[in-house]
Amino acid sequence: LEKKERVLSLKEKERVAWHEAGHAVAGWFLPHADPLLKVSIIPRGVAALGYAQVQPHEQALYTADQLNDRVCMTLAGRAAEEIVYGVVSSGARDDLERVTNYIYSQIVKFGMNPKIGPMSFRDPSETGNTEKVYSQTTAEMIDLEARRMVKEAYQRTLALLRDKREQLNAVSTRLMEREVISRDDMVELVGKRPFPERLTYEDIVQESPSTTTDADDAQAEAAPK
Amino acid sequence: LEKKERVLSLKEKERVAWHEAGHAVAGWFLPHADPLLKVSIIPRGVAALGYAQVQPHEQALYTADQLNDRVCMTLAGRAAEEIVYGVVSSGARDDLERVTNYIYSQIVKFGMNPKIGPMSFRDPSETGNTEKVYSQTTAEMIDLEARRMVKEAYQRTLALLRDKREQLNAVSTRLMEREVISRDDMVELVGKRPFPERLTYEDIVQESPSTTTDADDAQAEAAPK
Amino acid sequence: LEKKERVLSLKEKERVAWHEAGHAVAGWFLPHADPLLKVSIIPRGVAALGYAQVQPHEQALYTADQLNDRVCMTLAGRAAEEIVYGVVSSGARDDLERVTNYIYSQIVKFGMNPKIGPMSFRDPSETGNTEKVYSQTTAEMIDLEARRMVKEAYQRTLALLRDKREQLNAVSTRLMEREVISRDDMVELVGKRPFPERLTYEDIVQESPSTTTDADDAQAEAAPK
Amino acid sequence: LEKKERVLSLKEKERVAWHEAGHAVAGWFLPHADPLLKVSIIPRGVAALGYAQVQPHEQALYTADQLNDRVCMTLAGRAAEEIVYGVVSSGARDDLERVTNYIYSQIVKFGMNPKIGPMSFRDPSETGNTEKVYSQTTAEMIDLEARRMVKEAYQRTLALLRDKREQLNAVSTRLMEREVISRDDMVELVGKRPFPERLTYEDIVQESPSTTTDADDAQAEAAPK
Amino acid sequence: LEKKERVLSLKEKERVAWHEAGHAVAGWFLPHADPLLKVSIIPRGVAALGYAQVQPHEQALYTADQLNDRVCMTLAGRAAEEIVYGVVSSGARDDLERVTNYIYSQIVKFGMNPKIGPMSFRDPSETGNTEKVYSQTTAEMIDLEARRMVKEAYQRTLALLRDKREQLNAVSTRLMEREVISRDDMVELVGKRPFPERLTYEDIVQESPSTTTDADDAQAEAAPK
Amino acid sequence: LEKKERVLSLKEKERVAWHEAGHAVAGWFLPHADPLLKVSIIPRGVAALGYAQVQPHEQALYTADQLNDRVCMTLAGRAAEEIVYGVVSSGARDDLERVTNYIYSQIVKFGMNPKIGPMSFRDPSETGNTEKVYSQTTAEMIDLEARRMVKEAYQRTLALLRDKREQLNAVSTRLMEREVISRDDMVELVGKRPFPERLTYEDIVQESPSTTTDADDAQAEAAPK
Repeated sequence: LEKKERVLSLKEKERVAWHEAGHAVAGWFLPHADPLLKVSIIPRGVAALGYAQVQPHEQALYTADQLNDRVCMTLAGRAAEEIVYGVVSSGARDDLERVTNYIYSQIVKFGMNPKIGPMSFRDPSETGNTEKVYSQTTAEMIDLEARRMVKEAYQRTLALLRDKREQLNAVSTRLMEREVISRDDMVELVGKRPFPERLTYEDIVQESPSTTTDADDAQAEAAPK
Repeated sequence: LEKKERVLSLKEKERVAWHEAGHAVAGWFLPHADPLLKVSIIPRGVAALGYAQVQPHEQALYTADQLNDRVCMTLAGRAAEEIVYGVVSSGARDDLERVTNYIYSQIVKFGMNPKIGPMSFRDPSETGNTEKVYSQTTAEMIDLEARRMVKEAYQRTLALLRDKREQLNAVSTRLMEREVISRDDMVELVGKRPFPERLTYEDIVQESPSTTTDADDAQAEAAPK
Repeated sequence: LEKKERVLSLKEKERVAWHEAGHAVAGWFLPHADPLLKVSIIPRGVAALGYAQVQPHEQALYTADQLNDRVCMTLAGRAAEEIVYGVVSSGARDDLERVTNYIYSQIVKFGMNPKIGPMSFRDPSETGNTEKVYSQTTAEMIDLEARRMVKEAYQRTLALLRDKREQLNAVSTRLMEREVISRDDMVELVGKRPFPERLTYEDIVQESPSTTTDADDAQAEAAPK
Repeated sequence: LEKKERVLSLKEKERVAWHEAGHAVAGWFLPHADPLLKVSIIPRGVAALGYAQVQPHEQALYTADQLNDRVCMTLAGRAAEEIVYGVVSSGARDDLERVTNYIYSQIVKFGMNPKIGPMSFRDPSETGNTEKVYSQTTAEMIDLEARRMVKEAYQRTLALLRDKREQLNAVSTRLMEREVISRDDMVELVGKRPFPERLTYEDIVQESPSTTTDADDAQAEAAPK
Repeated sequence: LEKKERVLSLKEKERVAWHEAGHAVAGWFLPHADPLLKVSIIPRGVAALGYAQVQPHEQALYTADQLNDRVCMTLAGRAAEEIVYGVVSSGARDDLERVTNYIYSQIVKFGMNPKIGPMSFRDPSETGNTEKVYSQTTAEMIDLEARRMVKEAYQRTLALLRDKREQLNAVSTRLMEREVISRDDMVELVGKRPFPERLTYEDIVQESPSTTTDADDAQAEAAPK
Repeated sequence: LEKKERVLSLKEKERVAWHEAGHAVAGWFLPHADPLLKVSIIPRGVAALGYAQVQPHEQALYTADQLNDRVCMTLAGRAAEEIVYGVVSSGARDDLERVTNYIYSQIVKFGMNPKIGPMSFRDPSETGNTEKVYSQTTAEMIDLEARRMVKEAYQRTLALLRDKREQLNAVSTRLMEREVISRDDMVELVGKRPFPERLTYEDIVQESPSTTTDADDAQAEAAPK
């Protein structure tokens, strides 16, 4: 059951650096994204090739704005790859699974989509059935809205990163040099975040011992299920 | 299995106050809603961020009017958030699950929808099957009616709360000050309910020891399954 | 597992009286309905708020006429509520489940619908499958026929009860006074049934000890599955 | 698990006599139907109200002609009820289940339908799946063909029995008189079958001890599954 | 679990002789069909009424031509029945199941259909699911192609047998006389096969002890699953 | 459970040689295909009739270009058969299963299809359900995109092999002579690869002991699931 650690080729490492820089830079300039702690391109475990770690504080409520910014920050790794290479890779799969979950939750669980309206549906597995609780036509409408939302979010993310291309270059270069960069590096490279953090970095490092978890897990922990 | 109690941020607490004030004010002015006992924004357990508690008396029959008012009162938390913030949150999920259940029950279980007619269908789980007992086309018709009904109810709720915006402000402010308010506070802040209670408050406090349960559970208890 | 007996509010009791009077009066004037023994608005068990009891004799064959009259008699509680209050209640759910079963059985099991023709289909649970044995298009056609049939039956029932409104008033009033009324009360209030009983009351009381079961069970016992 | 024997009302007994006479007379004049042994209106067991017994010889092959005549003979009970009473009953349910099975087998199992062509499909239960092996559109085409075939067969059966109404009357009358009639009664009442039996009666009574099984079982035994 | 051997009626035996002669003659003149060893109309086991035995050699690859000829040879029993009697029988069911399997395998498993393209799909049972891996629209397209292919193959088979009607008569007559005929009988009755065998008869009888298995099994053994 | 090794006929062996030569030549000229180690037409185990072995190095990320070239290389066996014989065979089934998996993964798992967008969906088996997580309409759109993609890839592969027909002939001829050929034979027969290997052959033979696995397994190992 053990599995040896991956060794990335240089080409792969570069792609990972651009990918993680994408997450970091987009998150930095999205007003509702969580505060960033660390970015790394040192592979961890069998799956993670790198990570952009945010503060894993608990949150009781998520506004639609926060969920949308989270979607964009999660898409930003793929978007950076597309901007830099033109060709995307399989490395964004975990990000896209999370994005798909956020988008569908907004529509199906949190009743945030105007077409479907303020309703919340259970999954088949919650009902002891195997069929969707709604009709195929409703399922189609949900899929259409999900596709529209994810494409809009992706366009927004591409536009943001193209606008911040220099910052993206700077973060990616630093990542290739040092493999791990901190929030201080980010401030040095791209300036302070242009809006107040929901929780400041100072609160975080005081309050709780900084747990260095995988960025994905950290996001997932705070994420609506 | 234990889970530490949530501590809400101030911003979250404010949103919860508006949300619960929405339930309380809407229920106060909906003629068929249950009598209110207490409103609180002190989180309880792992899920409830606040509650608007109604009297959990047993009821054998529900008229369509009562079910409709219950839907509106349950939507009023989300509606208050939309009115105040413009942006909704994930905090209404439990409300929306209950609303979805009420609406679909009216159509599928209680035969109250004129398009579907006076029929009552079993869930797949009740039949030992996993497929709907009716066709996909009927499922689509049911979904369409449900969406129409929930949107109409939501519009009605928004209109009611906009009409009672001052009362909403007063209740929300008092909730932020005291965290818990009683029926007497409500009378002081918004006046007596403009129609006789189905059961008066006096009946309730005499008759049965006031059980302080979560508002959601209390509603659920009296709700048609 | 025990559950305390329900106590109905006066308002609920009145609604139940109209509901049961509806069953009783409709059954009295439907030529193929079973002979009535007793009507009661004393709640029994955890579910039944009242009942209109018919003679639970065994029957080997059901004609389409008998099934149609049974559907109308079962819908007559809901129809009485609609005539008297304008607004229906959740109290007819068990009736509507039974009606739904009768209607679908006529189409799917007894081959009595001219569109579907003389065929009889098994339920998925009888086949070890979970999918319908016929296509979605056939399922849709069956649903359409079922909706047409139940709406026609409901219109016929409304028309009958509106025609017999005085008798309905008389039976409901007597029920509120005495809570239980017998076949003799019915004869006194609305006259003898205008056609011979399939089995006369005299046969019944002689032949078998009158078993006082819940009307719903009694109907269900004699009903086609 | 025991169940007391049914006692039919006179009205029910009459309907059963017409029903069984329908089977007997139709089978007599359908060239590919199995030779008749006995007709009875004495209820047997908990389900059978009467039977028209044919010779239960084994047959290895069924031609499309034989299957079609079998469908008509099986529909003839229902057809006789419709001709005599105008209103059909639930008593034909077992017949209609068998007819449905014959018709669908011809299309889905024996490849005898020109629209579907010479193919044979497995049931979901034979494949370890729960979904049909073919598409919903094919399922719809199969249903359409099945409805067309059963309606044509029913029209053919009605026409045959209307043409032989006198014979139908004679057999039904004799059945009411004697409850059980033999092949000799049939010859006396309606004449010899107008074509050679596939197996003559003489072969049958010599060859094997006449097993008096329920007509339905006998048919089912020789029927394609 | 034992079951007595079937005894066929003369009429059934004749139909079986035409059926098996159909397989034998069609296979003889289809260039890619397997070499024939024996034809028999002696029933074997509980299901087989006769068989046309081919050499059960293993084959690693099947070309589309071989699969198409195999489909035609398998359809030829039904085709012979239709040519001779006009009316088909249930006796071709096993053949048609095999044909259905061949045709669907070509489309779904071997990627040989130009509309579906070079893809190979798993059955639901292989995936741990119960739903098709592709959409209903793709399932419909596959069904349409399958119907087109089987109808074309059947027309080709009918045309071939009508062209070889004399040979069909000769083989059927010999089968009725002797019940079992060999490859030498075939050469005597219809001449040598007009193209080289993939494996000659001589190879087969030398190389391996001739195993006399049921033709169906032999075909199935060498068949793509 | 044991199964004797297959012996191929000469005709089959020739077809396998063309098939494997197709894989080898296509992979040689596709810039993103893995470096080739060995090609063989000696059957192995019960299923593999031959193989074109590539270096089984681990890879963390797959770009869309790499996945597309992998699809073409995998289709090239079938394409070679079509070019040489005109008629395809069942021997490509395993290749087509893999191709189907690659194509659907690109669309459904890696979010690489512009119509579906940057989303990643779980299989029903991952969700504890049996129904697709998306609607039938989305499933149809995915199937349409998959068919378009596989047909474009197949056309690209046919064009490449037709362009390299002489090299295909040379490799196939050498395979028939020697049964196994090495990378050196490839260089001799078709020249050096016209672009740098991602990993050079020299790296591979130094770095790790050359494991001679089945080409299919080797590809599968490195493939995205």
